[in-house]
Amino acid sequence: VAGNNKLLKELNQATILELIRVNKAISKADIASITGLSPNATGMITLNLINDDFLYVSGIGESSGGRKPDLLSLKPNSYYSMGVDIDTDRIRFALIDITGQIIYRSRIAVNCVGNYKATFEIINSEIKKNYKDKLLGVGFAIAGQVDAKSETIISAPNLKWKNINILDVISIDVPVFLENESITSSIYENWSGICQGVQNFICINSKSGIGAGIFINGKIYKGASGSAGEVGHIIVDIGGPKCECGSNGCLETYSSSLRLAEKLNVGSINEVILLARSGNQFALDALKQSALYIGVVISGLVNTLNPEKIVLGKQFVKYADLIIDEIKDVVNNKALPMPASNVEIVVSEEGEQSSVLGAAILPLINIFSTNEKRAAVGI
Amino acid sequence: VAGNNKLLKELNQATILELIRVNKAISKADIASITGLSPNATGMITLNLINDDFLYVSGIGESSGGRKPDLLSLKPNSYYSMGVDIDTDRIRFALIDITGQIIYRSRIAVNCVGNYKATFEIINSEIKKNYKDKLLGVGFAIAGQVDAKSETIISAPNLKWKNINILDVISIDVPVFLENESITSSIYENWSGICQGVQNFICINSKSGIGAGIFINGKIYKGASGSAGEVGHIIVDIGGPKCECGSNGCLETYSSSLRLAEKLNVGSINEVILLARSGNQFALDALKQSALYIGVVISGLVNTLNPEKIVLGKQFVKYADLIIDEIKDVVNNKALPMPASNVEIVVSEEGEQSSVLGAAILPLINIFSTNEKRAAVGI
Repeated sequence: VAGNNKLLKELNQATILELIRVNKAISKADIASITGLSPNATGMITLNLINDDFLYVSGIGESSGGRKPDLLSLKPNSYYSMGVDIDTDRIRFALIDITGQIIYRSRIAVNCVGNYKATFEIINSEIKKNYKDKLLGVGFAIAGQVDAKSETIISAPNLKWKNINILDVISIDVPVFLENESITSSIYENWSGICQGVQNFICINSKSGIGAGIFINGKIYKGASGSAGEVGHIIVDIGGPKCECGSNGCLETYSSSLRLAEKLNVGSINEVILLARSGNQFALDALKQSALYIGVVISGLVNTLNPEKIVLGKQFVKYADLIIDEIKDVVNNKALPMPASNVEIVVSEEGEQSSVLGAAILPLINIFSTNEKRAAVGI
Repeated sequence: VAGNNKLLKELNQATILELIRVNKAISKADIASITGLSPNATGMITLNLINDDFLYVSGIGESSGGRKPDLLSLKPNSYYSMGVDIDTDRIRFALIDITGQIIYRSRIAVNCVGNYKATFEIINSEIKKNYKDKLLGVGFAIAGQVDAKSETIISAPNLKWKNINILDVISIDVPVFLENESITSSIYENWSGICQGVQNFICINSKSGIGAGIFINGKIYKGASGSAGEVGHIIVDIGGPKCECGSNGCLETYSSSLRLAEKLNVGSINEVILLARSGNQFALDALKQSALYIGVVISGLVNTLNPEKIVLGKQFVKYADLIIDEIKDVVNNKALPMPASNVEIVVSEEGEQSSVLGAAILPLINIFSTNEKRAAVGI
């Protein structure tokens, strides 16, 4: 029907791989019936994918009359992908296979601020050390503004990095991918975490600031110029404290790790949490106020976007037990009943590692995603 | 390649119709090259569409070497669609053709509150009076919560209507469609209004309350349970006035037409506007404060969703000149520079009629949209 048979073949391959990824194990008959592909085409494509080591027969399904069908699954330990999450004081690495299974993780303490050459020397050496023959690519997560298309870090204020093209600083010949770390976190939650199969969700992360990754209709949403998700700068009190962004009363001025530590006059959010857990009333009050404003912002997001889930991620995970009840109360009392009763507010199970695991998924998206391929064949 | 040839044919037809709709006039060669369909398939499909009166040869294009190509356009006055917008005190009607051309509009004053049977008698008679042979359907716009799939008005608080299935009250045998009026407004802006070709935008409307229609990636976004867009209940001041929704300090408590009229102790927003235009300082101050909070909410939407455009619609259009500068100032000062510099804040050119015109577009979407058809063939 369409002109370009090679692209259509890739589209059908991607459709089948994605279906198997989401369903874990599925028969050829079910693949054919769900995709609308003929049994013949389904058989040919899956045979190729088995020969290429993407798929294997993982079990035997239920009979629907005839003989019991083989179930196909993604093949573990066949193809690999690496994630790199760069923060101010450490680099995290994760190697996964195409099933999402974690092969290894590591963490190297290093001062990356203003120091991109030294940082990438360490990264190059770590990738070489753990190189696999069937490495599909390396994905990078950065706190800052990136241009994913040209693999360029436009601006990472905390790292004091500007306009760095990853291709210029990577010495390994392997495809590279780049995204903001809130986005990679939400990709992780959708592929392997707490939002598998969830079409519309928002992953709100605390690190030094507060940012979000937004999934709309099962796909990451980045906005007109790629900066969607800056929920830390939603104003919760127009007469509130000055924010670094120049505005007043942004969510971050009440609820970021940095501001909470400042308020309690301690060195980090970890100390605030320790104080709160030991019963210190100032710490408990500051966390309660921060939860109130997180709840106000989530109420607005719930009213506006009517998501299925809100995930609290990264540093929030360390003290979610201390704030989640207050947040849920605020949302139940302040968001409209209809969207409030349709949203689940949950805590990430991965904590601070969701970004590096999501970065490792970036090279896989290209193989499983049908979007660009659809666009290319014009459907 | 895929199993179901009839569905694939419909998919290719819809793809071509949508391409022609968006481009107004386009040659078969350009259709083939953009869609990836073969020249042969393109020729066959467009010939069928010409024979069925959907398309006609509207002009002659530029030569790219050989003879000058025919340009194809949607055929005016061939197929029709009707929109009905039901408000508390009037019903609006609009008949358009598939090119979006308005054939006629009418407005009937009637008290619809609590009175759905009488309302639909009037609607049935008006549709019959203006019935066209090639009427593709009737679309309804309602301020309230609807279930578009079952054509059911779940709850329209201002109308005091609950659980009304349009199919039960419509006596004409024609396909019917139903959507919330903020959604139909945004559909109008995307098809025929100020957001043609815009992928990501938010249409914020003032009527009795304030609501929004949200377009994401060129498609209307309705959320997990269909209630997305309730931006009137975003909290702008947690210690602010009580809102009808039960919360405090929602945008509506400062900026809805109802609250502005109450504050000035007059009967309607029209009188507030008259006072402001005559220089009354109380009215000007109230509008300025309302604009401040609209700006705060838009700043949050700009930070979160990074849209290309924000459209102020419906009653806002009556007095946009009095508030737009303040709104733009607030967004420029309070949203982050990156998304703020990428958004255009504009005023709808249609005013209060955008909903009824969008309602008239609902029956057309099914013919031009490729989404459900893609899902049906599994691509």
